[in-house]
Amino acid sequence: MKLLGLKNVKLEGGFLKDKLDLVRNETVDAVWNRFYETGRVGAYECDPKAEFPAHVFWDSDVIKWAEGAAYYLGLEYDKELDDKINMLAELMEKNAFEDGYYNCYYAVHPELTRFTNRNNHELYCAGHLFEAAVAYYEATGNDRLIKISSKYVDCITKIFMEEKGASFTTPGHQEIELALLRLYDVTGDEKYLDLARFFLVMRGHGIKEDKGQYNQSHVPVVSMDEAVGHSVRACYLYSGMADYAAVADDTPMAVACKRLFDNIAKKKMYITGGIGSTKLGEAFTEAYDLPNDLAYAETCASIALLFFATRMQRLQNDSKYADVAERALYNGVMSGLSLDGVSFFYTNPLEINMRNRSRYKANVVPEAFPITQRKRVFGCSCCPPNIVRLMPSLAAYAYGVDGDTLYVNQYMDSSVDLDGMKVKVTTVYPVNGNIKISASGTKRIALRIPDWCKSFTLDSEYTMQNGYAVVENPSELTLVLDMPVRFVKANPKIAACRGKVAVMRGPIVYCAERVDNNFDIFSFFAGEKSDVTVGEAYGGLPTVEFTGHTVECDDVLYSDSFEPERTPRRIKLIPYYAFANRGESDMAVWLND
Amino acid sequence: MKLLGLKNVKLEGGFLKDKLDLVRNETVDAVWNRFYETGRVGAYECDPKAEFPAHVFWDSDVIKWAEGAAYYLGLEYDKELDDKINMLAELMEKNAFEDGYYNCYYAVHPELTRFTNRNNHELYCAGHLFEAAVAYYEATGNDRLIKISSKYVDCITKIFMEEKGASFTTPGHQEIELALLRLYDVTGDEKYLDLARFFLVMRGHGIKEDKGQYNQSHVPVVSMDEAVGHSVRACYLYSGMADYAAVADDTPMAVACKRLFDNIAKKKMYITGGIGSTKLGEAFTEAYDLPNDLAYAETCASIALLFFATRMQRLQNDSKYADVAERALYNGVMSGLSLDGVSFFYTNPLEINMRNRSRYKANVVPEAFPITQRKRVFGCSCCPPNIVRLMPSLAAYAYGVDGDTLYVNQYMDSSVDLDGMKVKVTTVYPVNGNIKISASGTKRIALRIPDWCKSFTLDSEYTMQNGYAVVENPSELTLVLDMPVRFVKANPKIAACRGKVAVMRGPIVYCAERVDNNFDIFSFFAGEKSDVTVGEAYGGLPTVEFTGHTVECDDVLYSDSFEPERTPRRIKLIPYYAFANRGESDMAVWLND
Repeated sequence: MKLLGLKNVKLEGGFLKDKLDLVRNETVDAVWNRFYETGRVGAYECDPKAEFPAHVFWDSDVIKWAEGAAYYLGLEYDKELDDKINMLAELMEKNAFEDGYYNCYYAVHPELTRFTNRNNHELYCAGHLFEAAVAYYEATGNDRLIKISSKYVDCITKIFMEEKGASFTTPGHQEIELALLRLYDVTGDEKYLDLARFFLVMRGHGIKEDKGQYNQSHVPVVSMDEAVGHSVRACYLYSGMADYAAVADDTPMAVACKRLFDNIAKKKMYITGGIGSTKLGEAFTEAYDLPNDLAYAETCASIALLFFATRMQRLQNDSKYADVAERALYNGVMSGLSLDGVSFFYTNPLEINMRNRSRYKANVVPEAFPITQRKRVFGCSCCPPNIVRLMPSLAAYAYGVDGDTLYVNQYMDSSVDLDGMKVKVTTVYPVNGNIKISASGTKRIALRIPDWCKSFTLDSEYTMQNGYAVVENPSELTLVLDMPVRFVKANPKIAACRGKVAVMRGPIVYCAERVDNNFDIFSFFAGEKSDVTVGEAYGGLPTVEFTGHTVECDDVLYSDSFEPERTPRRIKLIPYYAFANRGESDMAVWLND
Repeated sequence: MKLLGLKNVKLEGGFLKDKLDLVRNETVDAVWNRFYETGRVGAYECDPKAEFPAHVFWDSDVIKWAEGAAYYLGLEYDKELDDKINMLAELMEKNAFEDGYYNCYYAVHPELTRFTNRNNHELYCAGHLFEAAVAYYEATGNDRLIKISSKYVDCITKIFMEEKGASFTTPGHQEIELALLRLYDVTGDEKYLDLARFFLVMRGHGIKEDKGQYNQSHVPVVSMDEAVGHSVRACYLYSGMADYAAVADDTPMAVACKRLFDNIAKKKMYITGGIGSTKLGEAFTEAYDLPNDLAYAETCASIALLFFATRMQRLQNDSKYADVAERALYNGVMSGLSLDGVSFFYTNPLEINMRNRSRYKANVVPEAFPITQRKRVFGCSCCPPNIVRLMPSLAAYAYGVDGDTLYVNQYMDSSVDLDGMKVKVTTVYPVNGNIKISASGTKRIALRIPDWCKSFTLDSEYTMQNGYAVVENPSELTLVLDMPVRFVKANPKIAACRGKVAVMRGPIVYCAERVDNNFDIFSFFAGEKSDVTVGEAYGGLPTVEFTGHTVECDDVLYSDSFEPERTPRRIKLIPYYAFANRGESDMAVWLND
């Protein structure tokens, strides 16, 4: 399917609109101010005598913020935001090299030679500039950043494709591939497609590469069959591959993408949509190796998975991609932002045991892991601006078109206006599963039935196709996705979740925090799971309570058998994404069963 | 009961004798050489210009080795060992202060004032000197070290009890209390008892103390009801308390000891007899907090628990003390020594998962935790000489006398000769549970029936008393302790062991190592536990095999239910104490059930 962009879709209300507004009202300024205070904005001045020395990826932090600001400009013009973006544009125009190259780190380090260190993020920063350029152009019609990007692409093309003048062949941190394909989508200029193809196809052939898994240089992309290495780099790469496969109708590339997606979704993904289960290289590990307390699960990695899953829809009309995108969005992505909109998680553990916390601390470096509290800024502060750019662009994830069929991939209170086709979706999803759809000028609508939904009602005839309920000539439809509290088990191959159960309702993963429960949550057993109730909202979504038990038994540590006596305990759960907003606390997604 | 010392008991053969010989043939020289190379021996020269700067606890490392060497002298005279001990004695005589004070660290740091820093281990080092003095005197009749100790005790008594001239009142690292009581036991000189009493009774009253739990200064000893803080300091203290309570018939002290012992044995002890479940302060944590991979369980702590449990027998004729001593000895203590006798574990984890190992490494300081390989020496190298002194003194742990009753607390192939009473125990225990006893001149013998033993036969009439089978007028007895392979569960309050099972046979805890099993041991389920066999020895004790399974199931990560298919798998287990002798490997004591 072709994905509908922000031009044709508008988010109107509901939970996601509240988040979009929170980010506009709080996060946009909070991140800008933090970047200003820490010298990241000032680095665009390219002053070698600046108080804060520029870092190789600082350009990307700020320009990712600009991408987010651009989306907000598209929703409602704001001179202050526009001025900030233009201030950055002016500095880039002033400080770019003659041939179009721009990088604040290299600008203040004239002793260094550009494109000689594959780990120095130059092409990564360039990619984020290109994404901001696309966003700003689509939101305002102003091509100032597109021009900067175009000249920069010419420079990169000359050095990498014509002169072979760089010390490496493909980026050490992928991102530019998908960014070039966005430039191509918007401009139609094949130079962007050519450079993207070059970076994708040359990768993994060992030409001035280290053949390492860390940044996916171990094999050519069409031979990749397992998600490995740094998980953000991986999913940015896979997103570029999916875009390229769709644009170029490249079947081997599409097949590789499907393999990689299935490998993640079936072997290497937390229930929250978190990926990358070790801090060591921020990387994927082997299948089913998904520890809860030591989860890395970077916010950016879940965002990258959301990008990848969404783009897979361009290759195949199957609801499984939107299922994964939804899982990541409402859990592992949203958890990266505090309820007040000004603090962030870089890593997103699925368990915080304050006892073990002190154990880890005994051996751990100061900016410690696992993290227990959101922070206002990080040394490597990629996640906060990634949230700033994601939230205002969420509407772009909702719909797709293939021929005469409009696909509803994500349920948002929103409206579509595309070539005479008007669709209005009214819902408070995921607070509940009631969805009203008004359609006109639409020949066929395909409504995704989520993987979590075991029963639903639709007041119209439909046929099921690849996870979508397809209705011909729709007008007024009511879809009710039954949304009971579910107790979910993990594949027994996941050691960390054996004998445990997680609570979900709709796409929302729940967690227990000690602050809500006056007993040790790690000594609680879900057991009988009686008297399940859905209660008042916390963080905009309902809480859940039910009764399980704790145990008392023989006062010995080890025995051939124990016959414990149960003490009923009522446990309160909040949406996982809202954890750690009330101080440090024990937290668990997976409860003893 | 009164404990029989090494004078009246001789170890004749069997597993423990093999270990005693291994330590004599390999470990004694290995530890000495390592201490020589690292400057610890040379530190006794008290040369401020020495290549290696003296450390506050180096005296104790070397003199603990000397204590072990003395026990071996008692078994068989060896001039080389004797010369080494006398070399140390000569250096102490030469370098001691006029008033008897000796400490190599303070000798080379004249700018420091003695007894002004409670953490500087002066009294701890002194205590180990006193223990060596007792051992050397008992083994050889030579009182050279006793004289040095006696003068040193006079010095300490004057400063602490008379002049109140130290900056603190009681030791920061306990040890001297139990050492003084050993001096009192051997010499009968009440000055040793007086100083021990002073240190025990003044503790925890806040007199020039910090009231911290770390070194058990939080409350007076008679008010202690929970084992807290540094686990070695704790059990050295508790050992001193138990000795004092026995000698002085101090009921409140005895009651406190019983509370503390039960708290450890019922709430805070690994199945291996390991204690101290966090590296942070090498300390006890809360009840049931016993993680397997992050276990600290220092070798010295298990040795200290063995000391404490054994001494509790002086206060109460109950087999539970010998049960704990045995558990610690064959598992958490023995694991500290490699099979070749020259390498050591400081910490003794119950699980090594090489995947998580790399996770921890990402954040962990170089001398990393959890450890996966035995090492030849440590920065803090207290454990190796602790093994050197324990192994030759094991016979002292076997027997006790109360009135006309001889208590057999530990089963060792050994002989007793005490005031006309002769007893010979012939056994290969714990290879099997067959024990032959020949007794003459013995009115009553009490044979401990271990807590792990669910059935036994004894070819004589007996009555059960506090866990001992008591036989009147014994002559030739055959006791058979049935020793099947057992599958042991943990109290459900121990989160780390839920849904898991450990394998034991007799007192031996088993573990699975990846090197013996061609599958991921963390994906193995004990399940049906069929075809249990006891096989060829490894590390001197039988291995165990049985059949469980691994699982295959639906190729999804999360679902409301899974119906896995089982693949039978035969697993081989080795005695826990012998783990990590064949390179780095996954290891697990607790298996999925």
